[in-house]
Amino acid sequence: MKVLVLGAAAGGGYPQWNCNSTLCRRVRAGDPAARPRTQSSIAVSADGARWAVFNASPDLRQQFNDNPALHPKEGLRHTPLGAVVLTNADVDHVAGLLTLRERQAFALYASGRVQEALAANPIFNVLHPDYVARRALELGQAAAIRDGKGADLGLTVTPFAVPGKVALYLEDQSAGPDFGTREGDTIGLKIEAAGQGRGFYYIPGCAAVDGPLAERLQGAPLVLFDGTLYHDQEMVEAGLGSKTGKRMGHISISGPEGSLAAFDGLGVGRRIYIHINNSNPVLLEDSAERRSVEAAGWEVAYDGQEIEL
Amino acid sequence: MKVLVLGAAAGGGYPQWNCNSTLCRRVRAGDPAARPRTQSSIAVSADGARWAVFNASPDLRQQFNDNPALHPKEGLRHTPLGAVVLTNADVDHVAGLLTLRERQAFALYASGRVQEALAANPIFNVLHPDYVARRALELGQAAAIRDGKGADLGLTVTPFAVPGKVALYLEDQSAGPDFGTREGDTIGLKIEAAGQGRGFYYIPGCAAVDGPLAERLQGAPLVLFDGTLYHDQEMVEAGLGSKTGKRMGHISISGPEGSLAAFDGLGVGRRIYIHINNSNPVLLEDSAERRSVEAAGWEVAYDGQEIEL
Repeated sequence: MKVLVLGAAAGGGYPQWNCNSTLCRRVRAGDPAARPRTQSSIAVSADGARWAVFNASPDLRQQFNDNPALHPKEGLRHTPLGAVVLTNADVDHVAGLLTLRERQAFALYASGRVQEALAANPIFNVLHPDYVARRALELGQAAAIRDGKGADLGLTVTPFAVPGKVALYLEDQSAGPDFGTREGDTIGLKIEAAGQGRGFYYIPGCAAVDGPLAERLQGAPLVLFDGTLYHDQEMVEAGLGSKTGKRMGHISISGPEGSLAAFDGLGVGRRIYIHINNSNPVLLEDSAERRSVEAAGWEVAYDGQEIEL
Repeated sequence: MKVLVLGAAAGGGYPQWNCNSTLCRRVRAGDPAARPRTQSSIAVSADGARWAVFNASPDLRQQFNDNPALHPKEGLRHTPLGAVVLTNADVDHVAGLLTLRERQAFALYASGRVQEALAANPIFNVLHPDYVARRALELGQAAAIRDGKGADLGLTVTPFAVPGKVALYLEDQSAGPDFGTREGDTIGLKIEAAGQGRGFYYIPGCAAVDGPLAERLQGAPLVLFDGTLYHDQEMVEAGLGSKTGKRMGHISISGPEGSLAAFDGLGVGRRIYIHINNSNPVLLEDSAERRSVEAAGWEVAYDGQEIEL
């Protein structure tokens, strides 16, 4: 099984269009310790030929251009893409669907809640039902991922609920502290290559590592995990916004409730932070925070990273 | 007045993610006579500091990255962008609005029909009304373009109806040959710098040059015009699709009803094709079609092109 990181950054990307922080200025200046990253998306293949994309970032066209594995290979119209799988309805995970127009067959997998969010936006009708099959993922049920015409990609996905929050544009301000979040709004995925006996976890958005999640991840060979923020307060302290990580539905890396602490002792083989916000100092290869996560055995994902499993 | 071409290609861009034609293979191979182009968007500034973007292409994040004029200049959060103006609701003109999130004030100008199309898609609520002022353009009425806080950008825009078609995802298949197209679905714009006595026309989508349009453009110093297709049948003949230019609401460059013929004798100073589809051979700098349009006095827009007026 091959995993290709198409975009390692969180919403906005690195740099973000309207951000003038030190981190964003360094990446714009071409600083070699501050590499640019596009928004959150990975591609996975069991056979190296047919791919499923997990989350469709707004940068998907650029990501397809930058990764020859995803270029068309035959005929006049072709794509190695067989399916898209979504973990939530955030803009940084669904806007790229609008790139996948032009009458190309593929399948679109998401929870019922996320499928509803898409159906409520007629602009996604550019993915015409004659070409794009929308299929619902059920929590706890392994799904064999098939392309738009029903051919098995050799990948099995098992979705599970993780602590999280509904997408920003779907927040119900009158619904109390969870803004109307319901089951299926944010999911994690176990992704396996059928018959290869290997699997990994992809969890780009997660508000906390609770008991059931810790138990699930125990001993996993590979986890790609929510690395949005280093400090829960970092956007507030940097003057970049008013929201904490908790308010955004993202666990932090540091702190007693952070992911570094939560993964300690879980025996996960390879741990990679992904979905990294442009405020997160781990993006800087010369930062103390980068040294700190690396010392704890974590990697920081980057665009174009290839992982063989 | 400065005009900056952010993206010269039509929907899909050049190359298009799922297109394996000779044109797309040449650009992917790095052929110097086949330069890549992102999707349709331009930026205009009266003072060189504050910019209005005309059409928000899906590639807008990449386009902002690639053009230093649009980088933030001061403080922690900033943008030289003051306003976005839309000529229709096509995906290649509106998807980039989703990039302009993150609580940044600007103004969004479009016809009432296009504003309705946006309002019908809750995903665009990421542009929160506390920050983004949506303002309606009225056909035939000059509008002074102001930023989100009301400051005048020094640009005046006069919208006018052009022959065209409603956006693909809004087509009403039961509505007859015009698919329910109504006034305001596709507009052209006259863009002037206040007090500078100069102006130009921006018409990236247009189905025909009829009498009123020809009269309007007579003697204009600069027109950026719909260069989607060279031949009305080129997508069909290349095996890339079943639609003619007429079906897509785009005039062709060649032929007795094409734009080369229609502009002949209009006395337009500078004529530049923009919104160029990846099937159009004028994209190839060594093609007979490129030589033909250049011999007729036209230019073919490219990403990063700067025009002083």
